[in-house]
Amino acid sequence: MTKKSPLAPNSFPKLPIIDGVEFATAAVGVKYRDRTDVMLASISVGSTVAGVFTRSATRAACVLDCQSKIGGDTSRGAAILVNSGNANAFTGVAGQESVNRICTAVAVGLGLPVNAVFTSSTGVIGEILPDHKITKCISSLTRSLHGNAIEDAAKAIMTTDTFTKGSTASVEVSGKTVKISGIAKGSGMIAPDMATMLVYIFTDAKILQPELQTLLTGLTDSSFNCITVDSDTSTSDAVFCAATGTSGADVTRNEDFKKALEHVMLDLAHQVVKDGEGATKFVAVKVKGATSDSDARKVAMSIANSPLVKTAIAGEDPNWGRIVMAVGKSGAQADRDRLSIWFGPHLVAEKGWVSKSYTEKNGATYMKQNDLVICVDLGIGNATTTVWTCDLTHQYIEINANYRS
Amino acid sequence: MTKKSPLAPNSFPKLPIIDGVEFATAAVGVKYRDRTDVMLASISVGSTVAGVFTRSATRAACVLDCQSKIGGDTSRGAAILVNSGNANAFTGVAGQESVNRICTAVAVGLGLPVNAVFTSSTGVIGEILPDHKITKCISSLTRSLHGNAIEDAAKAIMTTDTFTKGSTASVEVSGKTVKISGIAKGSGMIAPDMATMLVYIFTDAKILQPELQTLLTGLTDSSFNCITVDSDTSTSDAVFCAATGTSGADVTRNEDFKKALEHVMLDLAHQVVKDGEGATKFVAVKVKGATSDSDARKVAMSIANSPLVKTAIAGEDPNWGRIVMAVGKSGAQADRDRLSIWFGPHLVAEKGWVSKSYTEKNGATYMKQNDLVICVDLGIGNATTTVWTCDLTHQYIEINANYRS
Repeated sequence: MTKKSPLAPNSFPKLPIIDGVEFATAAVGVKYRDRTDVMLASISVGSTVAGVFTRSATRAACVLDCQSKIGGDTSRGAAILVNSGNANAFTGVAGQESVNRICTAVAVGLGLPVNAVFTSSTGVIGEILPDHKITKCISSLTRSLHGNAIEDAAKAIMTTDTFTKGSTASVEVSGKTVKISGIAKGSGMIAPDMATMLVYIFTDAKILQPELQTLLTGLTDSSFNCITVDSDTSTSDAVFCAATGTSGADVTRNEDFKKALEHVMLDLAHQVVKDGEGATKFVAVKVKGATSDSDARKVAMSIANSPLVKTAIAGEDPNWGRIVMAVGKSGAQADRDRLSIWFGPHLVAEKGWVSKSYTEKNGATYMKQNDLVICVDLGIGNATTTVWTCDLTHQYIEINANYRS
Repeated sequence: MTKKSPLAPNSFPKLPIIDGVEFATAAVGVKYRDRTDVMLASISVGSTVAGVFTRSATRAACVLDCQSKIGGDTSRGAAILVNSGNANAFTGVAGQESVNRICTAVAVGLGLPVNAVFTSSTGVIGEILPDHKITKCISSLTRSLHGNAIEDAAKAIMTTDTFTKGSTASVEVSGKTVKISGIAKGSGMIAPDMATMLVYIFTDAKILQPELQTLLTGLTDSSFNCITVDSDTSTSDAVFCAATGTSGADVTRNEDFKKALEHVMLDLAHQVVKDGEGATKFVAVKVKGATSDSDARKVAMSIANSPLVKTAIAGEDPNWGRIVMAVGKSGAQADRDRLSIWFGPHLVAEKGWVSKSYTEKNGATYMKQNDLVICVDLGIGNATTTVWTCDLTHQYIEINANYRS
């Protein structure tokens, strides 16, 4: 495994057990040796499950399968099975057959309808998934299910990740405590449409599926769809949220619950960026003063995806000229002479030129930080947005030029 | 200077003298030491000049100035002055004043109307151009103008380029020989809108300005707008073509001349990609079977700009899964199960899966070549396109993380 990201949190957070959710993991050797690579999550009777998926036109078989099932009946319980090491993407009819066999085995093992079984696969594209390695371990997986194993689950779903990702929040609703525990994997091929990113969030909240789905879709737009590592969108992205209702607290249209869920989703999204392949800097790109939300996003993503901006950040170079370039190429409405740029607290440029108060020394000192904020005010409207990205380093090349060998 | 690109041609081509065009260069120390950094081209009475420029919303002062002048009267002659080392972009009112002073000095020096003087600047963005260093050498430049100095001109306009770029073609029109000589600079910040790319083409053909402009605009779309090194678009791109008419041959709507000009433009465009920062592979991405030209282009550019595709190529990894990913994320209409992919002569994938005839060994052997062709057939329409790119290597990071320091 690659060295742990310098941006990694000190430790995996203590995630509370969600009553009604159990996990099991196994090392079946899909591709990796000497590590777990399969994770099963069992979700209790009466739960609801929402999901958001990649918009790639070359979606993997498991994504297509999940999309056909999400919103269906999970009143008799549900399950999610994830394997790492092989994405089962672009594997033709064989790929769909693998998904069917895995779903059937899990359904039989847990006594569930096959339509309540969801799967994700992450890893290399275009190689046949050796699903027999997975199906033959289902019965031992079901026997080892345990409420206190979410950290093991977070480990089993990793590919090029350098640390396990988890987040939690809790909220009081009608005198009851509602808990949320989430895990994620993701490191490369991260782009607006979530990329090779898998997220599983569990809560004991009580909420109907359509309500949960609306909440998850909306919050995904402002969290996982606002991060980018390399502008590449995966065939396999998925964000799931399962609500068991075991807390007894109905959270329908509850703003506190929404905020708590948003906190978990943003925290996981930021952890994915912080584990961006080769990342040494975590960068928030804030855009304001745009004439529309879509223009604000265009500018922010143009900056966040620019290889020249990202290599400058890697080199701790306060090269604001490249920010100007990225604004210019974004396709959004902009006026060179009304543009202002800040690096953190430092006003770098205003009115089409470098600011009188700016010194290269201040900029250079600021760029040495691990957490950076680049702010651009287009000065021509009121729309704002924030996206998050990381720098582009030698390590990114190292990882991706040698991934399969 | 960085080591010469492994994709560089063996030598600078022998470019014929274009009667009516003279060049001079000087080392004035705009930024670089011990090398020429200013180039003056003098174009004779009766010439026409066409130009195509970056579409960036943060265009440099010299680009805005050229755009206001192109199409105007050049019957009394014209001039182009180019400096390297400083882009004079995002320099506010001071930037426009620098352009004015340079244009005035050249106009006075050559006895031209100021509206027939065009300038380009390439280099760092956001720093004031020390234009006095340029204006004070104009009289010595005008004294050293020479018809046989185009290679010196190609040298003086370089920034991070590792080799000088030139191309030529000639064509018989009405029993007369029409010659074309062109030079270019460009290496990083190369994207569809031509990026930090400067191109100067000279011909002794006779053609009216509006006709020349239409020709240049159309051919730029299929040459310089079809290359990408890093998806970053410059504030300063410009392609000029000056026709002196000295051959006496009218080339208006002459297909042979169009083909010859296209040859020079494509050749220069390919040389720019071959000098892409850190490039070790030259890659043609061909897309066919798309439902529209715009979809064909979306898919081709999505592949050509994907960091994951480009790092795989750098690693000589026949990772066709990443091609599938890039097709999927492009936003173009695609059907996973009708997609075919070739690496050169090798059919890699068809009908949504790896081809039966494909072996990883064949793919890996093919990827060792310097010149690669990746072809994708979407299988759902008749639109086709080709774009050109290079790989993404450590050297790109090296150059761009340390450009200003």
